[in-house]
Amino acid sequence: MEGQSKSDFVFYFPITTRWMDNDMFGHVNNVNYYSYFDTIINQFLIEQAGFVPQKSKQIGFIVKSSCNYISSVSYPQKLVGAFRVDRIGNSSVDYAVGIFKENEEVASAVGCLTHVFVDRDSHKPTAIKGNLREAMLSAVVST
Amino acid sequence: MEGQSKSDFVFYFPITTRWMDNDMFGHVNNVNYYSYFDTIINQFLIEQAGFVPQKSKQIGFIVKSSCNYISSVSYPQKLVGAFRVDRIGNSSVDYAVGIFKENEEVASAVGCLTHVFVDRDSHKPTAIKGNLREAMLSAVVST
Amino acid sequence: MEGQSKSDFVFYFPITTRWMDNDMFGHVNNVNYYSYFDTIINQFLIEQAGFVPQKSKQIGFIVKSSCNYISSVSYPQKLVGAFRVDRIGNSSVDYAVGIFKENEEVASAVGCLTHVFVDRDSHKPTAIKGNLREAMLSAVVST
Amino acid sequence: MEGQSKSDFVFYFPITTRWMDNDMFGHVNNVNYYSYFDTIINQFLIEQAGFVPQKSKQIGFIVKSSCNYISSVSYPQKLVGAFRVDRIGNSSVDYAVGIFKENEEVASAVGCLTHVFVDRDSHKPTAIKGNLREAMLSAVVST
Repeated sequence: MEGQSKSDFVFYFPITTRWMDNDMFGHVNNVNYYSYFDTIINQFLIEQAGFVPQKSKQIGFIVKSSCNYISSVSYPQKLVGAFRVDRIGNSSVDYAVGIFKENEEVASAVGCLTHVFVDRDSHKPTAIKGNLREAMLSAVVST
Repeated sequence: MEGQSKSDFVFYFPITTRWMDNDMFGHVNNVNYYSYFDTIINQFLIEQAGFVPQKSKQIGFIVKSSCNYISSVSYPQKLVGAFRVDRIGNSSVDYAVGIFKENEEVASAVGCLTHVFVDRDSHKPTAIKGNLREAMLSAVVST
Repeated sequence: MEGQSKSDFVFYFPITTRWMDNDMFGHVNNVNYYSYFDTIINQFLIEQAGFVPQKSKQIGFIVKSSCNYISSVSYPQKLVGAFRVDRIGNSSVDYAVGIFKENEEVASAVGCLTHVFVDRDSHKPTAIKGNLREAMLSAVVST
Repeated sequence: MEGQSKSDFVFYFPITTRWMDNDMFGHVNNVNYYSYFDTIINQFLIEQAGFVPQKSKQIGFIVKSSCNYISSVSYPQKLVGAFRVDRIGNSSVDYAVGIFKENEEVASAVGCLTHVFVDRDSHKPTAIKGNLREAMLSAVVST
């Protein structure tokens, strides 16, 4: 997952770093990248798939996540979060997310996360269909 | 501090909310407002006063903070952070910070914070002078 | 609110600091104290007043918070959170919370927070009664 | 990494969850597990290897992290963090970390993280030697 560039992704979202994202060593702490990933994924779902966090019947639970940290970033650096879908299953989906410094082409970090979609009330897995599946298909890198 | 409007402030910064800013009740948790305040203040110092978080000899320690929560906000709402300086002492300064929904004139929350400026190494208070004082003066609301 | 000691409070809870609580200057960031306050207050409500975060019909919204930072603390310091109730109204209550280093008598920070209790669904203020009021009365410092 | 039990690890640390660890769905947000991992690893280094976060010449940078989320946890659940070392290289080390509900034997989540040790000032990789290597060897599961 090293050497990923902006063009390896499909959707892009600005990320505002925060003072407290930096840890004792003056870099964004490894934990906070996942708060960027989480937000990028939900931003995609909200803007492209009509997801409404407080209301939608179908919600996503993260069941797996990982990150490769390639070069450090620090507040107040402005970042871009890049998003694509790598695999769509029946009720689960794999995302890839890249974190880029605003003016750089090579990713500072790349994350992979798996969402399982479930019913908001029963927490039972539910199929990815309709708008949601179409939005995800639009985020697959064509080859 | 209720009833503050955007024009009661001097500088403005966009704030990107994050998925995990929301707590169990679906609103931005009371704690996270302070991460917005912290970031707005530092953004002001960086952009207007030449502050470099990793290097500047003079750094600010928060010694007092408070917030009035007027109406709730929720991710993915886009916010604006508004900033002014209320009092400049020898080594300390009082800030007021307003949190506004992007298209609203009345603040959703207003914070007041006091910075004491100290030497990065000795942590002894140091006078607010030169660029730093000028930047702060430029953020005082003229009456 | 300076010079508060452990005996000025009624209930005590251990606080585990986290690596990322420290900011660039190696101290617990001013924001994170409020996550301690939040947790101490809820811990009191859960243990003393039978509050169940995911279920109770009556929930508390923070409408005002403040903190005086007296001396810095740093991960991995073990902390004690001390709690008392300063005022009980019809539907609102004022708390004071002290943050102490494990073996110190003088508070490193003191917070004051106001909860308004509301109905979980309607968000309308509701009276503090029964167990909840009794628990709060038990946290008032007798003079 | 599913089906890991407490006895698959070597060191154990209590974890205090916080109110704001829970997200909108009432579970600890996927991001916060990494703040537990981060803290467990540093706690091990501090207690077993004499690491002093603010001073030690040799510090660790996380270059890779991952988590499998097996069953959800929620504040105010008390948790146990379990730790072992899976591989020790020249300057890098692989950790496994398990998150357990206090009274359960099967992990709720398992993380894998890689630290590269570097010089605090130059950020150049440095060999894992002496106390640090011994501590790590003591955390390897013998087979």
